[in-house]
Amino acid sequence: MALIVQKYGGTSVGSVERIEKVAEKIARFREQGDDVVVVVSAMSGETNRLIELARAIQDEPAPREMDVLVSTGEQVTIALLSMALHKLGQDARSYTGGQVRILTDSAHSKARILGIDKERMAHDLDTGHVVVVAGFQGVDEAGNITTLGRGGSDTTAVALAAALSADECQIYTDVDGVYTTDPRVVAQARRLNRITFEEMLEMASLGSKVLQIRSVEFAGKYNVPLRVLSSFEEGEGTLITYEEEGMEEARISGIAFNRDEAKLTILGVPDQPGVAYHILGPIGDANIEVDMIIQNVGADGTTDFTFTVHRNDFDKAQSVLGKIAQDLGARKVEGDRDIVKISLVGVGMRSHAGIASTMFKALADEGINIQMISTSEIKISVVVDEKYLELGVRALHSSFGLDQEAE
Amino acid sequence: MALIVQKYGGTSVGSVERIEKVAEKIARFREQGDDVVVVVSAMSGETNRLIELARAIQDEPAPREMDVLVSTGEQVTIALLSMALHKLGQDARSYTGGQVRILTDSAHSKARILGIDKERMAHDLDTGHVVVVAGFQGVDEAGNITTLGRGGSDTTAVALAAALSADECQIYTDVDGVYTTDPRVVAQARRLNRITFEEMLEMASLGSKVLQIRSVEFAGKYNVPLRVLSSFEEGEGTLITYEEEGMEEARISGIAFNRDEAKLTILGVPDQPGVAYHILGPIGDANIEVDMIIQNVGADGTTDFTFTVHRNDFDKAQSVLGKIAQDLGARKVEGDRDIVKISLVGVGMRSHAGIASTMFKALADEGINIQMISTSEIKISVVVDEKYLELGVRALHSSFGLDQEAE
Repeated sequence: MALIVQKYGGTSVGSVERIEKVAEKIARFREQGDDVVVVVSAMSGETNRLIELARAIQDEPAPREMDVLVSTGEQVTIALLSMALHKLGQDARSYTGGQVRILTDSAHSKARILGIDKERMAHDLDTGHVVVVAGFQGVDEAGNITTLGRGGSDTTAVALAAALSADECQIYTDVDGVYTTDPRVVAQARRLNRITFEEMLEMASLGSKVLQIRSVEFAGKYNVPLRVLSSFEEGEGTLITYEEEGMEEARISGIAFNRDEAKLTILGVPDQPGVAYHILGPIGDANIEVDMIIQNVGADGTTDFTFTVHRNDFDKAQSVLGKIAQDLGARKVEGDRDIVKISLVGVGMRSHAGIASTMFKALADEGINIQMISTSEIKISVVVDEKYLELGVRALHSSFGLDQEAE
Repeated sequence: MALIVQKYGGTSVGSVERIEKVAEKIARFREQGDDVVVVVSAMSGETNRLIELARAIQDEPAPREMDVLVSTGEQVTIALLSMALHKLGQDARSYTGGQVRILTDSAHSKARILGIDKERMAHDLDTGHVVVVAGFQGVDEAGNITTLGRGGSDTTAVALAAALSADECQIYTDVDGVYTTDPRVVAQARRLNRITFEEMLEMASLGSKVLQIRSVEFAGKYNVPLRVLSSFEEGEGTLITYEEEGMEEARISGIAFNRDEAKLTILGVPDQPGVAYHILGPIGDANIEVDMIIQNVGADGTTDFTFTVHRNDFDKAQSVLGKIAQDLGARKVEGDRDIVKISLVGVGMRSHAGIASTMFKALADEGINIQMISTSEIKISVVVDEKYLELGVRALHSSFGLDQEAE
């Protein structure tokens, strides 16, 4: 008998029929003796419907009122799921975020969880109830409704699991686990049985959008075993957990990539202290997030400075950089939208030499030119021309032995 | 400068466009210096949509979960109306029933208000905000979401007006006031400028469904001046208030009628103490509400006992009455579905003789036979054959000088 927190996203509860399927899944856990706390999202389409209503009135509605509005989406789902559980003979009680006092700061639409009152849930579990909680929402100290931002239901689930010291937090989604890379790009991509929190963070932030990054950070911080599974198919999914002894063998977990980046270079900047700050300060002030940063010192006492930003921020960044270039007396600004980042992720690379050279060779063998390189403890990223994305990912997937074995 | 509580029903907030119209109306009150608290219903159709979702799962969902579900309807409206007010440059803050702590008992789907915490609203009003509150909902002592039952938004408005000692509670609806009778039956029906709480109660319970009865009782109890007005047209509406000196002249306020009744008679019951109880006890036990009751003592030591029930309860009442008749050794049970009740309502009749005889003469002049008569302080009701409804109402409307003057 275990205490399990389960989270079902919008497509998993997208209709009354699907909600009833979810109830059946929960009932099976109850029947094998588990205690279950369920976190649900709004039925798919509902949040967008609500946002459209608001947008019909104002382009930028007050965040406080948006939170009052969109938090109704999950509230509908908790009631319907509780009814579906009742229908199966399961005792169940629904709660909004405010009712189980998921206390957050007052940053409407992107609030952070400060604490959870577990009394009420603990009492319901003790008396044999399934506890159904609205994801994505909380209340601030003054009792205002807040939301954690889209996708925040994962974070709710992890936070509840941490507060209740649950044995496992299960995130049900429309994929059956975390893959070595995107199966749409590499047909041989394999589901991972396990992955570490750190690797998952690298995979998630690089484009494998299975879980919200914040929920993974949260799970890592509070050591909540996190499992990603399919709502629609049976299976073990992928367990995200701390590194264990036996995992050392798996040198590389997967290959992530990101098509959403663009590259900017400022050439011939006088090489003096404070240059990086002079360039990135105004970029940050313009609310542009920077990903990779590379600086090369040239022979003539000038330096070239290259960084990547989200492709949507490219035009803005280019215009900011134009000004900076003038101020710094730089030679030139160059930009390129047609790039992608490909990353090799794996805790194993810490203790294994030669990973980087294997990677560069695999790309060179395919004639792929590497434009930027950046490395971390468990990741090596390269920026290449966009047209090489599929070719590069497939080459690396195969070189590192990640391809699924033929059955 | 006054403090006004306004309530807008489902059709008044049935679309984004209508919500914006409501915001404009509120802004006009703000511009003339009034403080405004607004209570809103769910957008028309929304409550039914939610109920259908629930019914797709269970025929009789748990009332606690139904309340969690349907209370989202008003929550959507408060957010949208607040946004519409912001757009007009008005400060506004929305609150669910729970957030302003409309404390109720735990009778889900038909809860009664026990108290309201006015602190938060008073603070918002002091700082120049329009306060927008979700109607129809509250929380119980344990923090569970409750609802006051359909139409309960009127009650919310009156309760808030009472708690805040508002100068007036305005109920905006799709009619422009209370009429002397149903304008669909009598073209000359006139809008009343004023009516007393007691008269309004009689009018409402007899079929002029402008306001929820409970809200009128509440307004009377706490002496909250209540005004019914149109959301869509300009006008003074009808003020519902305590009887005043000058009102004595208006002998009759209006003529109400009810097509939903049916009549049952048990004939030849031995006339002995407890007969009424023996008959009405089992009817009450069967959850059948009785309206008019008449008992005549015959010459032969037996009595005839007649009462009216809602037409939907007629078959059930007849079957219960059949058993009772056997037990009591009654001669016979008779029933008639095709009846209507017509009522003359007016505080003036207390102090004016001859109202009843004028009424009976007017009906006799049209050849209308009276089957039952029942009187109270401010009302005389008669039961007549259904086919005489329009004829009877028109005759009375004209006899008592209620017809609109030709313009």
